Amino acid sequence: MPSHSHDDPPTPDTSAPGAGPPANRLDVVCLGNALVDVLASAKDADLMELDLVKGTMALVDHERSAAIYDRMGATTEASGGSAANTAAGVAALGGRAAFLGRVADDLFGQAFTHDIRSIGVAFDPIPTAAVPGKVVSGHCLVLVTEDAERTMATHLGVASEFGAVDLHDGHLTSTQVVYLEGYLWEQGPAKAAMREAIETAHLNDAAVALTVSDPFCVQNHKAEFLELLNGDLELLFANEEEAMMLFGVSSFDAAVDAVAETGVLAVLTRGAQGSVVVTAGGPLAVPAAPVGAVVDTTGAGDLFAAGFLYGITNGLSPEDAARLGGVCAAEVISHVGARPLADLRALAVEAGLFG
Amino acid sequence: MPSHSHDDPPTPDTSAPGAGPPANRLDVVCLGNALVDVLASAKDADLMELDLVKGTMALVDHERSAAIYDRMGATTEASGGSAANTAAGVAALGGRAAFLGRVADDLFGQAFTHDIRSIGVAFDPIPTAAVPGKVVSGHCLVLVTEDAERTMATHLGVASEFGAVDLHDGHLTSTQVVYLEGYLWEQGPAKAAMREAIETAHLNDAAVALTVSDPFCVQNHKAEFLELLNGDLELLFANEEEAMMLFGVSSFDAAVDAVAETGVLAVLTRGAQGSVVVTAGGPLAVPAAPVGAVVDTTGAGDLFAAGFLYGITNGLSPEDAARLGGVCAAEVISHVGARPLADLRALAVEAGLFG
Repeated sequence: MPSHSHDDPPTPDTSAPGAGPPANRLDVVCLGNALVDVLASAKDADLMELDLVKGTMALVDHERSAAIYDRMGATTEASGGSAANTAAGVAALGGRAAFLGRVADDLFGQAFTHDIRSIGVAFDPIPTAAVPGKVVSGHCLVLVTEDAERTMATHLGVASEFGAVDLHDGHLTSTQVVYLEGYLWEQGPAKAAMREAIETAHLNDAAVALTVSDPFCVQNHKAEFLELLNGDLELLFANEEEAMMLFGVSSFDAAVDAVAETGVLAVLTRGAQGSVVVTAGGPLAVPAAPVGAVVDTTGAGDLFAAGFLYGITNGLSPEDAARLGGVCAAEVISHVGARPLADLRALAVEAGLFG
Repeated sequence: MPSHSHDDPPTPDTSAPGAGPPANRLDVVCLGNALVDVLASAKDADLMELDLVKGTMALVDHERSAAIYDRMGATTEASGGSAANTAAGVAALGGRAAFLGRVADDLFGQAFTHDIRSIGVAFDPIPTAAVPGKVVSGHCLVLVTEDAERTMATHLGVASEFGAVDLHDGHLTSTQVVYLEGYLWEQGPAKAAMREAIETAHLNDAAVALTVSDPFCVQNHKAEFLELLNGDLELLFANEEEAMMLFGVSSFDAAVDAVAETGVLAVLTRGAQGSVVVTAGGPLAVPAAPVGAVVDTTGAGDLFAAGFLYGITNGLSPEDAARLGGVCAAEVISHVGARPLADLRALAVEAGLFG
């Protein structure tokens, strides 16, 4: 397996300034759970009653998903899925993105496919035949509390069957970055598919990025994630809490030191405090972008990753890429839903990041 | 058929101040198409290319609906349906509302049922067995242009089969007002059901209200709507354009005169210019409620009707009821989607309409 480090920039094309990527090369291929978000307002007391931990994502079976849904207020449905939101963000910035995931041929699967394609992301799934109430597309119940925090209960449905058959070689062999969702690490066939994707990426000079996704993912897969940092990954995304859990340290500074030792480019997000980019040259703190009223934090991390990935695959320094991540995250938390509504490209230009 | 007029107040309970309605009596039963809205941003040029007339609703078949959907950007799904939005608004104000409509047992039908019940509206449908791509719940493609105007293409699906079997006697015999959606007048079985509902309502001392819904409904059913004004209706909702079309006059003042002659209480809405309530005592102009940025006018008329209906069934004068209608309409046009997000009751209190 090829070994990449900071001497080996994660994005081959930025190492050849001016040359630019081949016209048909993708910026990012994202692998993740294809989910439709089902959003409703909720109170803290509702979360307690439903036994949900605020700010986290829980995997639930069909029965529990139905029971939570029954207790939710009026909902809005919109396409979601962490890595899918990231792909949508890259496309909204003008980038070339593809998504790999599994849907069923039901209304949720059709809406997911329509929405991600309509924003310009390449997505060519092999839909599983749906059986109402049994074989369904994945969906994520999102309870948005008054403090704009989101708490999620995901019923994966057919997304849990994502595997090697869903990989699209045409995409994986022609991209600058392959981006993996930590949530997928819960599932055996998905894990095997990701291992295969890592190999294909490296054979084709692509960098591999991982988001650890959620504290529970770090808890469940800590050893494997640490192992991936030893040669499989060129780029790591984690928030403050996840980074501390991953390295088993009790301060953010210690997490920064620990990730620096791995030699992997890392972006650690800290909510309103912005982010820290850990490069071979040391850590760089990047302030958060200004935001008006925070309405719904769903998708904040996903859109941060979109801005960063678009940035580093399109000529920005890691620091400016983190700034762009902040701009994208600020947009998505200013409204309900996990995909951008405003013109991200225009916001990036406004922030002075592109001519 | 009983004859009601202004001497016969449309709301039996307001004629006995202090007595109040029986504890289990509903304020309003709404009959209409059960629809899920599929909303996306669009440009004027998109409407032209898709051959849609801005600001109106077109009925489309499955193929045309699919073709329009394919051309739409990323969508958000949320429960809609004109009379259903009105029922949701009445419930959001603290009123007792029921809805009568037809859904299939697919994801859209399930979401519609969940959403309207979760806001407190009684809805006990007999779902039709769904056949994917063939027998589906109704849905309305809503294209929201930059001027916040909405243009709609509705595929009725099983909503087109709404008929007498969907009437719920327990609701119809125990309500103050029965509210009919003009859109239903397009469908033979629905028309027969509405005739039956009018009779049941009048036998049980309920008032009957009609919204003419859309200019195309007025065009198609002008003679019948005028005939309904002769004894079948106690309350009429129309916007300026619809009222002028209905009475075949070329000025708003002439429309006010014409509706006054019918003796039916009428509320004519004029967008930013507010509304005119036409009572036996003459027309009363009521200004619109203040609104910040207008984001999406979907549901404006529906929520105006909700405020008015809740008002007149809960002790307000027609003038104050129209004011409440304006407050509810202002809320719903300040965000995407046709159902209220804010606490309507609190907004009504803020506007000085309830202690």
